[in-house]
Amino acid sequence: MKALVTGGAGFIGSHIVDRLLKEKYEVIVYDNLSTGNKKFLETSIKKIKFIQGDLLDTKTLSKSLENIDIVFHMAANADIKENLKDPTRCLEQNTIATSNLLEAMRKNNVKKIVFASTGSVYGEPNIFPTPENAPFPTQTSMYSASKLACEGLLESYSEGYDFQVYIFRFVSIMGERYSHGCVFDFYKKLKKDRSNLDILGDGKQKKSYLYVQDCINAIFTVLNKSKEKLNIYNLGNEDVINVDKIAETICKRLKLNPKFNYSGGTRGWVGDSPFILLDIKKIRSLGWKPTLTIEQCIIKTLEWIKDNEWVLERN
Amino acid sequence: MKALVTGGAGFIGSHIVDRLLKEKYEVIVYDNLSTGNKKFLETSIKKIKFIQGDLLDTKTLSKSLENIDIVFHMAANADIKENLKDPTRCLEQNTIATSNLLEAMRKNNVKKIVFASTGSVYGEPNIFPTPENAPFPTQTSMYSASKLACEGLLESYSEGYDFQVYIFRFVSIMGERYSHGCVFDFYKKLKKDRSNLDILGDGKQKKSYLYVQDCINAIFTVLNKSKEKLNIYNLGNEDVINVDKIAETICKRLKLNPKFNYSGGTRGWVGDSPFILLDIKKIRSLGWKPTLTIEQCIIKTLEWIKDNEWVLERN
Repeated sequence: MKALVTGGAGFIGSHIVDRLLKEKYEVIVYDNLSTGNKKFLETSIKKIKFIQGDLLDTKTLSKSLENIDIVFHMAANADIKENLKDPTRCLEQNTIATSNLLEAMRKNNVKKIVFASTGSVYGEPNIFPTPENAPFPTQTSMYSASKLACEGLLESYSEGYDFQVYIFRFVSIMGERYSHGCVFDFYKKLKKDRSNLDILGDGKQKKSYLYVQDCINAIFTVLNKSKEKLNIYNLGNEDVINVDKIAETICKRLKLNPKFNYSGGTRGWVGDSPFILLDIKKIRSLGWKPTLTIEQCIIKTLEWIKDNEWVLERN
Repeated sequence: MKALVTGGAGFIGSHIVDRLLKEKYEVIVYDNLSTGNKKFLETSIKKIKFIQGDLLDTKTLSKSLENIDIVFHMAANADIKENLKDPTRCLEQNTIATSNLLEAMRKNNVKKIVFASTGSVYGEPNIFPTPENAPFPTQTSMYSASKLACEGLLESYSEGYDFQVYIFRFVSIMGERYSHGCVFDFYKKLKKDRSNLDILGDGKQKKSYLYVQDCINAIFTVLNKSKEKLNIYNLGNEDVINVDKIAETICKRLKLNPKFNYSGGTRGWVGDSPFILLDIKKIRSLGWKPTLTIEQCIIKTLEWIKDNEWVLERN
């Protein structure tokens, strides 16, 4: 089996690559290295084919899809906080990029795709934990709007061209190779100033996080067990943590005692959902469950960043 | 008050123009005339400013939005049946076009928009009549996927840039200036061959239709009475009709008795939803209700086509 991984040099994408190699797939990574990092492919680079390509470059993309059996589409602009500064970026790098990918697949008769979506497509739901069939959501960020648009495209390719589609709506993922998000930001800030920690919002936002290896296991569990034409699964942990508690966990581990300074408001940024907790009954029914709690996940992430401080400079 | 109407030379758009003139708006029509028709503006053309422009031409678009108070965004690629032949067309002409419009509005500080969405964003729902907060839908056509993507963009502009947004999810609209859809197709076919009528699907698909003047009244009722930042309303009739009954109503009126030939299957085309009935409780609570039944609506439409057969040649 031959797999192409878009964003395969990224945080989650590179773990997909490792897993695919373990499962004896032939692997092609397609990455423009805008946020991905070849260091994440250190252990795999000799066993894969790496193509430095952009999803907006339809010619290179189409050529790369020759004889592929399955696509893992992990490439995305995931810069949620800054998306209002450049509102068309998510449309281009997520929605149009995904359309390009689907067209290239169609032309090459590649009909199976795994897509990294997001729990933020639920907007600010009224139901917690939020199930896959929650009420029709409204979008609060360019990022979530662009990911929802991708889901719609994938679904219509499934209906119209008989694609087999796997959509995963992720909570935030942490673990080895984690290179953006609040644990990353907090660590970086504390390196600069050990006595102060700026926190976006009021620190009370409640989020759910999942360990990257649990995420990868979940994806492959679904691939093995769920064979519908269209498969949509939430992916998250059973519980939530608030931002204050994340900061406290980090500070305790680093043996620091900074003053917390809040930017204020109930949201970290415009479009930030103050409470994210996904219902994971559907995927749990396939036998998968998370192995790490959120706190274990934070500590594992922190240890990895401490051992790989080069990652701080790049992002 | 100064309004810009995209697709203002189209079926519904031109009726919006007439209504805006009655309400003493200054009106600018922005239309590329790809499916719109200047004949629909015959009675209004001297009172409006007409710009022949494309939504993909961002320069002309941005200039056209200077000093506008409200935008009615009715322009769209509405060719649902053929969308699989050219799957990126809906993305370009609906999603990217809408993103361009929103960006041009933002740059010109225009923050109020009315958007023509579609009941097909509900995919194939399980709940009838289908309310605005139906379960998270999956898309079955490029058309509905592109419209859902537009809704997401509008919502994130509302959240991120404080736009006031009115989204209307329409059933099929009929009436004067109707120039595509099944009544149109049946009439055209019967003019060619009075003794045979080809019908897509099995004739049992149940759809809801609304008279265009009821549609326009509904939009202005909501504009006058609903003042939220984000306003989403279904727009339809209380009942449904099946395709066979539409064909029979037309044949009876035309005093014809053709043989019905079915293409077969429960859908007219891939992605066709076999049952559309929207819940209109929300808009009815504002005091609006449809004045014509679906059958009255069909007959009115038929009479208009008979008096305006030039429209058959163009489409």
